[in-house]
Amino acid sequence: MAKNLEISMLMDFYGEMLTDKQKEVVSLYYNEDLSLAEIAQIAQITRQGVRDSIKRGEATLLDMEERLGLAKKFRQMEEELSHIIACAREIAFQAEEMPRSQPLIEQAKEIERIAERLME
Amino acid sequence: MAKNLEISMLMDFYGEMLTDKQKEVVSLYYNEDLSLAEIAQIAQITRQGVRDSIKRGEATLLDMEERLGLAKKFRQMEEELSHIIACAREIAFQAEEMPRSQPLIEQAKEIERIAERLME
Repeated sequence: MAKNLEISMLMDFYGEMLTDKQKEVVSLYYNEDLSLAEIAQIAQITRQGVRDSIKRGEATLLDMEERLGLAKKFRQMEEELSHIIACAREIAFQAEEMPRSQPLIEQAKEIERIAERLME
Repeated sequence: MAKNLEISMLMDFYGEMLTDKQKEVVSLYYNEDLSLAEIAQIAQITRQGVRDSIKRGEATLLDMEERLGLAKKFRQMEEELSHIIACAREIAFQAEEMPRSQPLIEQAKEIERIAERLME
């Protein structure tokens, strides 16, 4: 069973749509990187049960992304915010050479702070 | 049946989680502001059928928001982006009085453009 690297990100968006059991095993498999056998022991189900639960969880997460597309939108937003941060840094850099530019530099730094917070 | 004003916004996020019929009637009710009787005629179902379909659609949308909370996160993000826009405008305003500040004003306007696009 090959690990789908996107699943971990989809868990951040849609994890609450899974059953408690699916959430547990998918998280152990993708976030903690445990093996099916290790997860079977922790979750007290068979190895096949773990596999089925992961498969069903993955299917739900991928279906949610196909319907709502939030992970994709989020990645686009991150790119735009990176661009805002780059502009704000350039403003602060250019303003350093200017007289009485301190208030302006503060505004640029505030923009950078907000954009970084939004990217978390 | 009182109209819940939040539903229209939740449709933007989670509309694709509804059945086609629910999507149709909820949209006619909330976005087009039609009456139950008018929707019944369009959708070719009974008034009670319309009412049930809207109720079920609303329940799904509210449940999705309770699980994922994306509309709430989006509203918070809008506030942060408004703050970024205000800072960018203040930079452009202050820079107008400064010599050789045109490149800096351009950067501020670029920030404003990106933030406005993200708010759409």
